[in-house]
Parts: sequence; structure tokens; C-alpha cells
Amino acid sequence: MWDRLYTNGHVASMDPNNSTAFGAIHDAALGIKDGRIIWIGKGADLLDKPDALAHMVTDLDGAWITPGLIDCHTHLVFGGNRVREFDLRLNGASYEDIAKAGGGIAATVKATRAATEDDLFDSALARLDQMRAQGLTSIEVKSGYGLDRDTELKMLRVAGKLANARPITVRRSFLGAHAVPPDGPMDANAYIDWLCTHMVPDIARQGLADAVDGFCETIGFTPEQIDRLFKTAKAHGLAVKLHAEQLSNQQGAALAARHGALSADHLEYLDQTGVAAMAKAGTVAVLLPGAFYALRETKLPPVDDLRRHKVPIAIASDCNPGSAPLLSPLLALNMACTLFRLTPYEALAGMTIHAARALGLQADTGMLRVGMAADLAIWAISEPAELCYWIGGNPLMSSLHHGKESIAP
Amino acid sequence: MWDRLYTNGHVASMDPNNSTAFGAIHDAALGIKDGRIIWIGKGADLLDKPDALAHMVTDLDGAWITPGLIDCHTHLVFGGNRVREFDLRLNGASYEDIAKAGGGIAATVKATRAATEDDLFDSALARLDQMRAQGLTSIEVKSGYGLDRDTELKMLRVAGKLANARPITVRRSFLGAHAVPPDGPMDANAYIDWLCTHMVPDIARQGLADAVDGFCETIGFTPEQIDRLFKTAKAHGLAVKLHAEQLSNQQGAALAARHGALSADHLEYLDQTGVAAMAKAGTVAVLLPGAFYALRETKLPPVDDLRRHKVPIAIASDCNPGSAPLLSPLLALNMACTLFRLTPYEALAGMTIHAARALGLQADTGMLRVGMAADLAIWAISEPAELCYWIGGNPLMSSLHHGKESIAP
Ligand SMILES: [Zn+2]
Ligand SMILES: [Zn+2]
Repeated sequence: MWDRLYTNGHVASMDPNNSTAFGAIHDAALGIKDGRIIWIGKGADLLDKPDALAHMVTDLDGAWITPGLIDCHTHLVFGGNRVREFDLRLNGASYEDIAKAGGGIAATVKATRAATEDDLFDSALARLDQMRAQGLTSIEVKSGYGLDRDTELKMLRVAGKLANARPITVRRSFLGAHAVPPDGPMDANAYIDWLCTHMVPDIARQGLADAVDGFCETIGFTPEQIDRLFKTAKAHGLAVKLHAEQLSNQQGAALAARHGALSADHLEYLDQTGVAAMAKAGTVAVLLPGAFYALRETKLPPVDDLRRHKVPIAIASDCNPGSAPLLSPLLALNMACTLFRLTPYEALAGMTIHAARALGLQADTGMLRVGMAADLAIWAISEPAELCYWIGGNPLMSSLHHGKESIAP
Repeated sequence: MWDRLYTNGHVASMDPNNSTAFGAIHDAALGIKDGRIIWIGKGADLLDKPDALAHMVTDLDGAWITPGLIDCHTHLVFGGNRVREFDLRLNGASYEDIAKAGGGIAATVKATRAATEDDLFDSALARLDQMRAQGLTSIEVKSGYGLDRDTELKMLRVAGKLANARPITVRRSFLGAHAVPPDGPMDANAYIDWLCTHMVPDIARQGLADAVDGFCETIGFTPEQIDRLFKTAKAHGLAVKLHAEQLSNQQGAALAARHGALSADHLEYLDQTGVAAMAKAGTVAVLLPGAFYALRETKLPPVDDLRRHKVPIAIASDCNPGSAPLLSPLLALNMACTLFRLTPYEALAGMTIHAARALGLQADTGMLRVGMAADLAIWAISEPAELCYWIGGNPLMSSLHHGKESIAP
């Protein structure tokens, strides 16, 4: 007997082997056993009566099943928030005023260092629960607001605990190279040395992260510094990914591609060389429309070039207290369409199959196919594009992670 | 005995008589009797022990109370949706293709005419419930997708039934002058004549609307036509309001002000003359950042001029299937700050005290003061500006409409 069987629904499988829009199967059924999809197809093709096939049968009455959503770029764990800075700026305060009032990333570093591990966990969990309520079943979480040994490790431990507290897959990225610690004494080069000598080996040994991330930018780290960091990461068996080409073109994406990075993220200033390098390496382009929106950017990422070179495009929330306090995966989908002109299919692929690939999870999740994990979301919609069309709504009915109820009906 | 007493919270009263930011009272208590606020102030100033004062005492543990949110401009009742058109456009279809596929307002008119009253009610209620879940306690709902007698009346009846189905205040606007009926036989002048002769008197007599609204635009109706409509509305005891200066400057806002309109709405192309006329008449400026966002507009409403002339600014969702399928009052607040650069205080005033005024409800709701209706929302936030800062989140804990639980804790 199977554990569960859904009948009388429609499936947006996102399976590229299915050539219909969204990999759709209408009037479908989907069976689950031991946390995996064991059967998927037309309901009429079921081999027996539903009750004879599964312990638990749910009639979906025309609802849609999609893969559970995957947010492949978040800074979910942080101390405090930056509402004071948001308010000051809108009241006309200058950047100097805000810096004086303790704004910017330095404010979050201070608050994150000061926070207890329990407080960090509680606030991250509350944010995670808001995102799970919109069908999220996998999330990437970065460190990077500690910039010292204890706080970076604390952030990574908190991210790990989220996966024990909720039915969710968590992938962790060590983002020590987010910024040079604001309070010295190291300069950027010395800090990268320290990360390579002490932090990366230690994190790899403790299994606290799946990947190493960095911020390659004039106000971050140089390509040469990132290159050193990535060599160390790979020597220790960690994957790499990069914040690249957000504010200027540093050829960060090409550097990431040379290292076989899982993804290069942001990419507003990505050029043809970078696109071609990513295509060749199979590096996923992670676009972050929430930061684009909140910062009122006007420079668009080169979506047409990415399409032409068949670079897989993922969409993520970038959830963070400064440039994108975005708690809604569905709104990220709408913003990808509205602001970046992705099609609804591209946007949904960007939070399912391509997001899975950006996390190295593509063998397990991100599409609905026999053998894949039963990570899925069930929606009260008439067609999959509705997930992108509504702004600020939430039609989720329920969700499963590895066959286990994440959001109950 | 009072019915309810909240203790140990903070209150953002939005009361202009309270000069602190957001009309805030820290460490506050708020008492309710017979659906009205009977006591508000510092918890330390309570005249007796909480249990001796009220039947039901709730310790808010530092949560914030604000007035219930008010959405003063929505097209909540409509048949179908326009996801197909959204998808087609992002897939590169021309406006001609979309018109051929039955897009635009004509598509919604067709679907709304075809829908049964029950279907219209069910879909509007589902949308209303999403908005109530974010602390909404009053909403304006327009007709305008019928453009024929039966459907316009059907829409207004449906809007009325929402108020019976849920604890919410509904104000109805007759928007027959939304567009010229697409299928003839009347031209714009003949249609306005018909509205004035048949529809407005009938709607007034049946008590089906509180106000008459119109669309004054090159692609809508001329100021002269709106002028005739407004004279008729006022002769029948109905308030007036206007969609004005959205796509061009027609001097619609000044016209509305001359008629003592409750509000003029959209206003991207509003000029100094219009601002001054609105200020003099006390007409509220209703800004709709959701439509601005979804249409990727770049022309901003003249916020600084409105401030200088002390025109009250309201913010609304404009919820509609075409230009703003926006289901989130909180996201409207964030968009008002992010896109229109309103301060968090101005944005929140725009969905409380000024929105109440835009609906003629200011004697009853929109701020927290003794004697006002107990319409309030309780939030898990550390300061009121957080309601504007987060994007796509929802920290609502519970809400009351006229003292009755709308969203239960
Ligand atoms: Zn980031
Ligand atoms: Zn409107």
C-alpha cells in the first residue's frame, strides 16, 4: 500500500520531459510512499481503486499540485531588523545621519553578534514559518552577519536547527566574505587569509555548511580574493557560489563559472562573457527581484541573453533586513514577472527545478517525477500562472515535505 | 463592566490630538464596551484592577494595537480573472493578440455578466478574507464591470452581502461610468444620459450605493460628462468620488473638488491647480501604488505638493483583475513607502484616518479614541513602522470590528 494518494487534481510537474506548459497533467493522480513519489499520471490510468492503493486518499477537487517552492538565496538568520533605518531614510535622513544612528550592515552585524542563539533561532523560525505558509519546502540560508568566528558559527548552527524544527530542507552557505569586519583589525586581504586558514577548514570539518559564498564587488572583495577563497573551499570539499555583478561588472560570474559554482547571484551588470561562461559551466543565474524592487534599481539583469545561452534562471527572495525584507516566495514570483519580465513558467521554474539545481538538490526535489522526494504544494488556483499573477495573495491549501505534512489543509 | 480590556500593549492611536509619532501610547490599555472604545491610555492610569473592569482581559505582552486597516478604493467584485492575459503578455503577445483573445476590461465585463450572483459573492468573499487576514476592518467596493442594468445592480448587491457575511464595514460606490459599454448601442454621451436618468435614481432609491464614482480620462469620460453625472448623484443624495489624472491631466481632480467629492483617486498627473482645489474642498487624495507597480509606471503622483497643501493622503489597494490583482493591504503600505516615498506614518495614516475620511467614516473609525468604533488590529511588531518595512509578511495576531472578533488570535 502507498502512504498517500491524491486524486482528481491537476499537476504542474515542471518535468522537462513533459512538453506541455508547466509539465502539466490534467485530471491527475499522485501517489506517495516512504516520502517519495511512487506514481504520477492521469487519474484514469490508476491501476486500481484509490482506496485499494493507499492508506490515505485525498480528492483534490480540481486543485493544482506543484513542486514545493525552493528559495535558493536568503539571509534568513539575523539579529534585530532595520525598520528604524527604513523610517529615517523615508523621513529624509541622509546616509551620514543613518550611519551615525548605526545603520547599514554594521547595524545588523552588531545586533547579530549581540543576539543569543535562541533569539536568533526564534526570529528566523518566525520568518521561515511565513515562507512555509506559501508552500516553501527547501531554503538556502547564509551566514555573513557575524564576520567573527563565534557569530558565523552561531548563525550556521541556527540555520541547521531550523531543519530539525520544521519539515523543510535547509542548505547552508558560509558567507564570511560578506564584508570586511567593520571593527578591524584586519584589512580585506588579511580577512580572506583568515577565512581560508581558519574558518573554511573548521566549517568543513564540522559539516556546518554545504557551500561557501562571497560578495565580489568594489565595496566587497576583489575577484583575486574570491579566487583564493574558492580554491580553499573546493580543497575542503565545499561547493561555491557568488554574489556577483550586482552594482558593477567585476567579472565575478565568469570567475564563479571557472570554479564550477552552483550559482552566481544578482547579475544586474552581467555581460556577454559572463553569460557564456555560466552557460558553459552550467552555473545557475539566481535573480533577486525583491532587492531590485526595494532599492528601486533600474538596471535590469540580461534576461534575454540568459535565455539565448540557455542558462538556467532561478528566482529567490534574498530575504535580508536591509535591501529586501521579503517574506513571500509568491511575491518573488510576481516580481520576477512584473519587474524582470519573466514568463510565469520561467518564474515558477526559477523557484522549483532551477532553484533545486542552484542548491545541488536537483536529483531529489524541484520537479514532480516518480522517485523524487514528495515535496509538493497544493493550491486553490485554476492554472499555474495564477501563482505569479496575484500580488500579495496566498492560495496555498497544504504542502508536504518528504511526504510529511508541512502545512496542513 | 466593560466587554473587553487589552493591557500591557502599545497603541498607535493615529489620533492627531496626540503629538507623539503615530499617536503612540506605550504600555497602554484599551477598554471596549458595546462595540466602542470606552477607555484608552497608559495602563498605569487604569482606575481599577483589570479583572474588576472587564469581562474579558487580554495581556498583549508588548504587541501593538492600531486602528483596523481601511481600503478605500477596490474593485473587489468581479467575474473570472485575467491570468491568461497576464501570461500572454509576458510571453510576448501584442495588445492586438490579447484583444483578440478577449483581454482587457471587456473580458472582465463579459465574465462578470456571465457569473451568477453566488459565484461573484464566493470569489469576492475569498479575496476579502485574504485582506481581512491582514487586519482590514473597512473596505470600499465599486461596481463597474457590468455596464448594464442587471449586472451593475448584481455587483452592488454582492458587495452588500459581504458585510452580512463577515465582521467588516463595506461602503459601496456605483461606478457605472467606468467605461462605455463595449457592445453598444450607446455612445458615451447617451450612456451618461442613461446613467443619470435611470441608474442613479434607482440605485439611490434602493440604497444600493453610498457614492457615485467615474473614470475621467481620454479613454473614459470627459469632465463635462462627469459633471452631469455628479450633479445627478448629488441631487439624489449620493456622495461623489473620481478616478482622475491617472494617464493624463483632465482637470478631473479640480472638478471633483468643486463637487465636494470625498476623494480623487490615482492622481499621477495631478497639477498645482488640482492640488489647491482639493485642499480647499477637503477632498482626499487616494494614491494607488499597486497599479503603479503592476503597470510599471514612472510618473509619480505629486506627493510633495499634496504635503505642502496639507491634502490628506489615503492609500488603497485598487484590487482589480487587470491593473492591480493586489490582495494585501500591508503590501500597499510598503509600496506607498518604497515607490511613492511616503513615510511609514503617512502610509499608515493613509490606510486608517485618511482612508476613513475618503469614505465619510471619519466620525466612526480610522483612529483609536474614546467613542470611536472598536475597529482595531493587533500586531506582533516592535514599532508601527514595521507594518510598512516588511515586504509580503503578515504579523497580524487578531483583529476586531465593532468590538467583535474578525480574526481570532
Ligand atoms: Zn544575498
Ligand atoms: Zn479604480
